[in-house]
Amino acid sequence: MSKHFTGFFNVKTRQEVEALISSTLHPLESETVPIFRSLDRISASPIRAESSLPPFSRSTVDGYAVRSQDTFGASESFPALLTLKGKIDMGTFPDVPIKTGEAMTIPTGGALPEGADAVVMVEHTESPDPTLVEIYHPVSPLENVIQAGEDIKEGNLAIRQGQRIRPQEMGLLGALGIPYVRVTKRPVVGIISTGNEIVNPEETPLPGQIRDINRFTIGGLVQKYGGETRFIGLIPDEERALKQACKEGIATCDLLLLSGGSSVGVRDLTLTVLNTLPRFTLLAHGVSISPGKPTIIAMVEGKMIFGLPGHPVSAWIIAHLLVTRAITALLGTDLNDTLRWERAKVLENIPSAQGREDFVRARVEKTGQGKNAIPIFSKSGLISSLVEANALIRIPLNSEGVYKNDEVDILMLT
Amino acid sequence: MSKHFTGFFNVKTRQEVEALISSTLHPLESETVPIFRSLDRISASPIRAESSLPPFSRSTVDGYAVRSQDTFGASESFPALLTLKGKIDMGTFPDVPIKTGEAMTIPTGGALPEGADAVVMVEHTESPDPTLVEIYHPVSPLENVIQAGEDIKEGNLAIRQGQRIRPQEMGLLGALGIPYVRVTKRPVVGIISTGNEIVNPEETPLPGQIRDINRFTIGGLVQKYGGETRFIGLIPDEERALKQACKEGIATCDLLLLSGGSSVGVRDLTLTVLNTLPRFTLLAHGVSISPGKPTIIAMVEGKMIFGLPGHPVSAWIIAHLLVTRAITALLGTDLNDTLRWERAKVLENIPSAQGREDFVRARVEKTGQGKNAIPIFSKSGLISSLVEANALIRIPLNSEGVYKNDEVDILMLT
Repeated sequence: MSKHFTGFFNVKTRQEVEALISSTLHPLESETVPIFRSLDRISASPIRAESSLPPFSRSTVDGYAVRSQDTFGASESFPALLTLKGKIDMGTFPDVPIKTGEAMTIPTGGALPEGADAVVMVEHTESPDPTLVEIYHPVSPLENVIQAGEDIKEGNLAIRQGQRIRPQEMGLLGALGIPYVRVTKRPVVGIISTGNEIVNPEETPLPGQIRDINRFTIGGLVQKYGGETRFIGLIPDEERALKQACKEGIATCDLLLLSGGSSVGVRDLTLTVLNTLPRFTLLAHGVSISPGKPTIIAMVEGKMIFGLPGHPVSAWIIAHLLVTRAITALLGTDLNDTLRWERAKVLENIPSAQGREDFVRARVEKTGQGKNAIPIFSKSGLISSLVEANALIRIPLNSEGVYKNDEVDILMLT
Repeated sequence: MSKHFTGFFNVKTRQEVEALISSTLHPLESETVPIFRSLDRISASPIRAESSLPPFSRSTVDGYAVRSQDTFGASESFPALLTLKGKIDMGTFPDVPIKTGEAMTIPTGGALPEGADAVVMVEHTESPDPTLVEIYHPVSPLENVIQAGEDIKEGNLAIRQGQRIRPQEMGLLGALGIPYVRVTKRPVVGIISTGNEIVNPEETPLPGQIRDINRFTIGGLVQKYGGETRFIGLIPDEERALKQACKEGIATCDLLLLSGGSSVGVRDLTLTVLNTLPRFTLLAHGVSISPGKPTIIAMVEGKMIFGLPGHPVSAWIIAHLLVTRAITALLGTDLNDTLRWERAKVLENIPSAQGREDFVRARVEKTGQGKNAIPIFSKSGLISSLVEANALIRIPLNSEGVYKNDEVDILMLT
């Protein structure tokens, strides 16, 4: 072994790092947004129904509000004959009760009058004149009726703290009369790209230079999982500049991601710089994930910092598995509700080494039976392989690989 | 049958309506956004690589750039001894070539000098002094090297027209030097809630009134699928007001959704109003989907209009199956890439009627083997059942139902 070789100390497994992230980070403070701006935000507190839904018993059909006992035995040959006491208008509450032998015309969604306990569908009736209705089918009590409080009862939990707001929850908020909802703030995630060889997308690289990729792949993931991206800058591999950028990131962001610098010297630089910052704690120096091992996770002044590998694929896999967990921890929700783990049949042998958890890019396709995963074997620097991929095949820590046709865990990427 | 009964004419199947939507709607014009704002947008044109990626051959490891033939037969006992010709800095192109018997120190990502065709990992070397390096392992040609153009070749298609931009595509855009990307505009989707019984979420309903739900469930879906919501208003069941709202919606939006009015009279009103508008064509009056049959689809002045059922569940199912298709058609992408159809084992019998395609709310849970779907049987007016659901079980048009333990198609909702 060469004296140049710098190993990792403090290498942790994915599970260990996940537990560390979850125990270290806490949900951010909350803010209030109108329902139409609440999609995919995370409820910051439990929301209880302040009143019952619906607030009154409603008809689910167009027809006649009746006392069900009056329809007992009704048939096409022997209809029940009821006296029509008028019409219930939508949005009003009938001011007269229904008595035995009486019915009222009711629209879908109309409020059931006092005394009525069921609705006969209009299709099962005939009204020979405005004062009479013939009922051809009996109804049971509560038939074609949604009872007051049947949807949700006053005081019941409607939305959990930490629950993601989907279109359904948006509707429930509207129904409950909560036009503004308290959600956790979006974490502001600072992104620092490093590397003397990296240039901005609008620049033409000189020989030996390439354009930045990680800023966008990682930034996109951050946005996808509910964070807000703040690009701090493209920083050369230079201690003072990197320290300045880190300080800015820590001061202005909730989470800081450094990417780039997979060469040993540059990795050392990241650690050197972080080490000089106040209240520095190293959580992990190396994770037993491949690709992605050269990852640094640290806390500085209460903010979590990831030093991600420079290879686009490695950085992106670590971002997918671990950075997303940090974001959801800051959002106060459960990443497991969001990450899509599935099972698939792998279509090729994949060798692996024990002692690391491998994640292999794959193209997953649906079959009649389930899913097939075709591994994409290409170098971890190739962005095109990420564009081709829609899943990652997981090969467990203590496995020597998987065989063709084995069932494997896959993480769906889109 | 009562004279009140108004049937549907022009009832179509889901497949017929899908085909109609796809053939009627065309992608909107495009706009240009910076990469960081391009997540989940749809590429409006094919994007080709203007230059090869990477633009030069790069090392994938820290080590020594060599001519591979010089390492032939090297071993721990008989290392190959090469003359060190200096160090390649990141971001620069080595200005001297490597000749036989020579090596240069190269960092991960460094540019391969002329003459070199492989890199020996630093772990397989020893450098006794700054002018010499001992190689303990042979390398093959191209070992530890990404060749110029290996990622993507100049002129090749990088991103398809209609391709959704994921974090991966964002990275590729950066790498290709495309800081601004042309995407289709987000469709502006107008939403009109109707119903005399409906009030706004900030209002306290009087007896007989309820708060609006569909505005938010449908609005949330629109946003989820890439549309922008424009709430036109809450309109009473009154011809003049509804006509005015429709005209405003058609003038200001790309797609217009009316919801509410499941009672026969109100359904008739929607059709009556649309009928008075210029360039009106009825595409469907009723779809053979349950719940959701009372759906109207029409074109007015070249804009598509959906008259959705009033029941929250019915409206939402139709929105999920058909409105999303209209949105993706306007975006110029394929809904089938987005909708998550899966298979699951159903845990209860579900009866169905032939001649309609049933969609049953379900709670789907992962098992060791696959997925289980537990149907949620509750009335279609209940928003709480939507919050509980994370999938819809599909029962085909010509099926009389499914049995417990049958494998069924499910549409995942989140």
